[in-house]
Amino acid sequence: MMNKVKVGVLGAGRIGRLHITNLVQSVPAAEVVAIADPFLNEETQAFANNLGIAQCSKDPQDIFANPDIDAVFVCTSTEAHAEMIQRAAEAGKHVFCEKPIHTDLEQIRKAIAATEKAGVKLQVGFVRRFDHNHKKVHDVVASGKLGRPHLVKVCSRDPEHQPMSYIATSGGIFMDMTIHDFDMVRYLSGSEVTEVCAYGAALSGEGYDQYNDVDTAIIMMKFENGALGVIDNSRASHYGYDQRTEVHCDKGCVQVTNDLDDQAMISTHETVEIAKPTWFFLERYNNAFIQEAKDFMDAIINDTEPLVGAKDGVMPVAIAMAAAKSFQEGRPVKLSEIL
Amino acid sequence: MMNKVKVGVLGAGRIGRLHITNLVQSVPAAEVVAIADPFLNEETQAFANNLGIAQCSKDPQDIFANPDIDAVFVCTSTEAHAEMIQRAAEAGKHVFCEKPIHTDLEQIRKAIAATEKAGVKLQVGFVRRFDHNHKKVHDVVASGKLGRPHLVKVCSRDPEHQPMSYIATSGGIFMDMTIHDFDMVRYLSGSEVTEVCAYGAALSGEGYDQYNDVDTAIIMMKFENGALGVIDNSRASHYGYDQRTEVHCDKGCVQVTNDLDDQAMISTHETVEIAKPTWFFLERYNNAFIQEAKDFMDAIINDTEPLVGAKDGVMPVAIAMAAAKSFQEGRPVKLSEIL
Amino acid sequence: MMNKVKVGVLGAGRIGRLHITNLVQSVPAAEVVAIADPFLNEETQAFANNLGIAQCSKDPQDIFANPDIDAVFVCTSTEAHAEMIQRAAEAGKHVFCEKPIHTDLEQIRKAIAATEKAGVKLQVGFVRRFDHNHKKVHDVVASGKLGRPHLVKVCSRDPEHQPMSYIATSGGIFMDMTIHDFDMVRYLSGSEVTEVCAYGAALSGEGYDQYNDVDTAIIMMKFENGALGVIDNSRASHYGYDQRTEVHCDKGCVQVTNDLDDQAMISTHETVEIAKPTWFFLERYNNAFIQEAKDFMDAIINDTEPLVGAKDGVMPVAIAMAAAKSFQEGRPVKLSEIL
Amino acid sequence: MMNKVKVGVLGAGRIGRLHITNLVQSVPAAEVVAIADPFLNEETQAFANNLGIAQCSKDPQDIFANPDIDAVFVCTSTEAHAEMIQRAAEAGKHVFCEKPIHTDLEQIRKAIAATEKAGVKLQVGFVRRFDHNHKKVHDVVASGKLGRPHLVKVCSRDPEHQPMSYIATSGGIFMDMTIHDFDMVRYLSGSEVTEVCAYGAALSGEGYDQYNDVDTAIIMMKFENGALGVIDNSRASHYGYDQRTEVHCDKGCVQVTNDLDDQAMISTHETVEIAKPTWFFLERYNNAFIQEAKDFMDAIINDTEPLVGAKDGVMPVAIAMAAAKSFQEGRPVKLSEIL
Repeated sequence: MMNKVKVGVLGAGRIGRLHITNLVQSVPAAEVVAIADPFLNEETQAFANNLGIAQCSKDPQDIFANPDIDAVFVCTSTEAHAEMIQRAAEAGKHVFCEKPIHTDLEQIRKAIAATEKAGVKLQVGFVRRFDHNHKKVHDVVASGKLGRPHLVKVCSRDPEHQPMSYIATSGGIFMDMTIHDFDMVRYLSGSEVTEVCAYGAALSGEGYDQYNDVDTAIIMMKFENGALGVIDNSRASHYGYDQRTEVHCDKGCVQVTNDLDDQAMISTHETVEIAKPTWFFLERYNNAFIQEAKDFMDAIINDTEPLVGAKDGVMPVAIAMAAAKSFQEGRPVKLSEIL
Repeated sequence: MMNKVKVGVLGAGRIGRLHITNLVQSVPAAEVVAIADPFLNEETQAFANNLGIAQCSKDPQDIFANPDIDAVFVCTSTEAHAEMIQRAAEAGKHVFCEKPIHTDLEQIRKAIAATEKAGVKLQVGFVRRFDHNHKKVHDVVASGKLGRPHLVKVCSRDPEHQPMSYIATSGGIFMDMTIHDFDMVRYLSGSEVTEVCAYGAALSGEGYDQYNDVDTAIIMMKFENGALGVIDNSRASHYGYDQRTEVHCDKGCVQVTNDLDDQAMISTHETVEIAKPTWFFLERYNNAFIQEAKDFMDAIINDTEPLVGAKDGVMPVAIAMAAAKSFQEGRPVKLSEIL
Repeated sequence: MMNKVKVGVLGAGRIGRLHITNLVQSVPAAEVVAIADPFLNEETQAFANNLGIAQCSKDPQDIFANPDIDAVFVCTSTEAHAEMIQRAAEAGKHVFCEKPIHTDLEQIRKAIAATEKAGVKLQVGFVRRFDHNHKKVHDVVASGKLGRPHLVKVCSRDPEHQPMSYIATSGGIFMDMTIHDFDMVRYLSGSEVTEVCAYGAALSGEGYDQYNDVDTAIIMMKFENGALGVIDNSRASHYGYDQRTEVHCDKGCVQVTNDLDDQAMISTHETVEIAKPTWFFLERYNNAFIQEAKDFMDAIINDTEPLVGAKDGVMPVAIAMAAAKSFQEGRPVKLSEIL
Repeated sequence: MMNKVKVGVLGAGRIGRLHITNLVQSVPAAEVVAIADPFLNEETQAFANNLGIAQCSKDPQDIFANPDIDAVFVCTSTEAHAEMIQRAAEAGKHVFCEKPIHTDLEQIRKAIAATEKAGVKLQVGFVRRFDHNHKKVHDVVASGKLGRPHLVKVCSRDPEHQPMSYIATSGGIFMDMTIHDFDMVRYLSGSEVTEVCAYGAALSGEGYDQYNDVDTAIIMMKFENGALGVIDNSRASHYGYDQRTEVHCDKGCVQVTNDLDDQAMISTHETVEIAKPTWFFLERYNNAFIQEAKDFMDAIINDTEPLVGAKDGVMPVAIAMAAAKSFQEGRPVKLSEIL
């Protein structure tokens, strides 16, 4: 067996720190040896020191040039993802990249080509695949015991509105939020989406329409294997992170509801109350993030394909583009129009 | 207070007998005085006698001509519904009619016009509105305490395939099965559907495609009030009658799951088992049928509008037509193209 | 097959009318031909007429003397139960008797002896045995698939306090309320109670202590088959009728929770609310009462033993006596001290 | 604010390593500087190195004598707990001790007296108090919004039988297993137990009776505040770790069920399956162990009383002794007979 995988992390913002903390505390196969963040400051330095990480710099090149480093986590802003993947690949590093690689398919393909040329692993950060609930749905479907999938359903609602400043540059609901669900339906159905039809509406009065964006959406899909799918999204559930998946098959159905804060029931003359869903993705997918990192380490150590690979970097983006086009043009859009 | 409403029932098949039994045993305000069924036989006669119903004949005219009769339940085959409504109205009887009134909008309008001219009540048999679960969803939405509706979701799956002989003449999944859900989304959203987009697939291998029909469908909808909706259907759940509704609103969500056979949980080393949903509509909507009949009696006695009236006889049929057109033409269809 | 069982009902109070209505409307094998109630008045007469029952009188002898009557439902006040059973038996009628037969074991035994001598059926009104939930627990245990029972648990709480006038003459919580649970544990365990130990407390401040009674109780039991059991009771849950049963066995556990008013969940920023349990026994055990009556008819028609027979008339009363003694003396009490 | 609390851990067996790993990875306020274990071997050394812990020895004195160490975790075998507490206290270290301190009340009192004399904190390892579910029950009761507690219920079942070699020296079910539940009922009721009555049975055929021990038990309790309580235990649920708590109060009830492996439901023609409870305490109380350690650090840093203190080291042991006596003598036993 190989020694620990030595990891450099690019970007020490919210998601970067999440990965760093998990790698240090909960992924024994990993050793974080370096961090590079253009906004590096004393606070980041203290964070790194505290976790025993010696090398901190502002320049990603310090990581690419470090011959000790086996793998890189790309946690920068989205625009830089594709370039970072290319440079990491050229330096012979395995790459884990947060989603999406890019919002331009050509850039994604170039980044992927670089990893293929270099013969390094590429894993894309669709973390929900590592969640115990959604994985259970996938595993039951994939086992074949329910027969062929007929209907794939995903409900995905964020707890509350993001600031409008975020919405302004988010890329729109389909690319920013539904993209996770597009990966999920591919994962659950075991098939590729061939056509989508999207409805959207700005109903909350928060101002989404000024960005031609919506807070509420429903997207229907057709899959190569004949199954149909549907996703419903809301930017604001108000009661927590609502993430339910369901696949109805030839012989029955598998579905998962939300993880709740606790299993309590409080009964009085007035009401019976139960707990709310966990509030947001950090609570809900806490263990999934750890599993995701472990899985990447396994792929490197055992030289196997990552669970979420290059194709998964392309397809959800393409589906999101098709959905946006469908919404704008008021008609179903085939993936062949995009790819 | 008026005396008992004297009722004549047209058609003593499965659904006719259901209404007769309910009216006799569970609707104190009603008195069934006559049955007319073209296929009247000894067995029907015995059924009637057993319930203390004196008058049985093959000719509906015996009911229309009976001056004692206040109201008529139309439980004949679908083709005859519109004509029966007209004749009942012309005879001055209030009319309860099973759904759909007709699959031709012109026929429906003529039937409705007859009831309006005669000044009699018309109630259409969308029984699910009287179900304790769906009614709860409706009532919470209608109360306004969750704010404006954003997303209306209905999952509706029959337990098992009908014989292909039934499918051959059913009118297709949208008119035969989804029609109930189209009424339901109108009821839950408190708004009218303005556009639909339907996907369908024949996945079970049972032969639906030979009738240009499908066993699996997803239908998206837009509503006048801005909300979006989605229905998913399957002809065969295999685990029972799956009827779930949900409305996500401005301030939260209300949803109902299935009534189960019992509240048991059996835990062993191998599995934890709970009960299945009730098997089919007779079990699930047993009490709803009684409530439906009581409500019709109340409308007559108190001279109020039935909960499910003339417009409800028109709209679900029109939406079903739009959905079928959308499925055939592969594009969203506005209701204005139909009405 | 025998014709309809002709039934006379003694007592037309709340529970009597419940049985009468069920027998008339929902038990096709029964025909209620006569009612006798010492407090017979016009309102009772109207109730009877409305259901098509011709014979009404104040004197039970009118029922005993009627040669057409096959079976008698004893729904009088508790004190009269034993005498009515005896007289009915002597008149050759099968007897259904509401629980308890008497609070004196000698009286119970005399009544039972009369039915045995006359060769008529005796069924005692422990209605919960016919509830779909508790029956499921029983059936799973009785099937043997979970192995031998180890722990039998019953939680039984009434929704709200009875008036103190009721408590004054109720016979105490063990005889009035827990008696149902004592029958239930026998039914679920498939075994007889050999020893009980009871704790009780008057905690609500409602004045139970002035009658040496309690509003809260826990009772442990030993069974002949080695299993242990426990019941917890409260006179006032405040949230509805709380009736849960559970049997833990050699290989696993079967448990049932409450039937709820509906399957709704309402989620907002403040709370997630679900429905309350059905409010009281009339709602909860509505169908069980019908099943109970049908089962009695079956026993008569097929000449089989009633599900709840003579021994079930004796044992719960004896256990209640033992529990009361245990509570008063602060020690475990063996059933052999009572029987 | 004080610097990190420097911790020495006595005992590096299963529970010791659990605490060490948690302290290092998940409790930022703690720094584990030393381990002492009489069975220290290379494997333990490697475990320590891996976590960056420099000092490892076989002799606890190396920890007591280290002036840098602020606090000690006593994770040795039970017999040594009391002595270790005393020596740690005399060395001026705060002490966290796994439960029970001792099975002899005199020894417990001496250990506690030593900590009081030294003015150091003592926290006892009743980890369940830090579980999100049971804490929710406690918090709701303690808030007073449901009024005074009437009934406290705990169901606690281990997933499978321990080896008989373990049972031989376990001290019996009440001291080994129910002791956790005795602490739990005190925590939930907010009151002390004044009397217990225990039933037990060896039903599994595994040989418990040869050690005068049982695999199944029910224990009733009276509390100082008037409430009643009941615990049911099984050594083998077979379906996972079953840990449910419930408090019925003056105005309603709060209850928690088990955490499950996932939120999946799989519905087919044959069954509807849901997930099993998490398998054992390590899965179920994983986060509770972390909370427990954090809470101890907080108590040290802020100089507050630990949530689980000296009295909690005495009372559960005394109740377990009373329960064992009750079981042996077949009568209720007052705590005043023990204390």
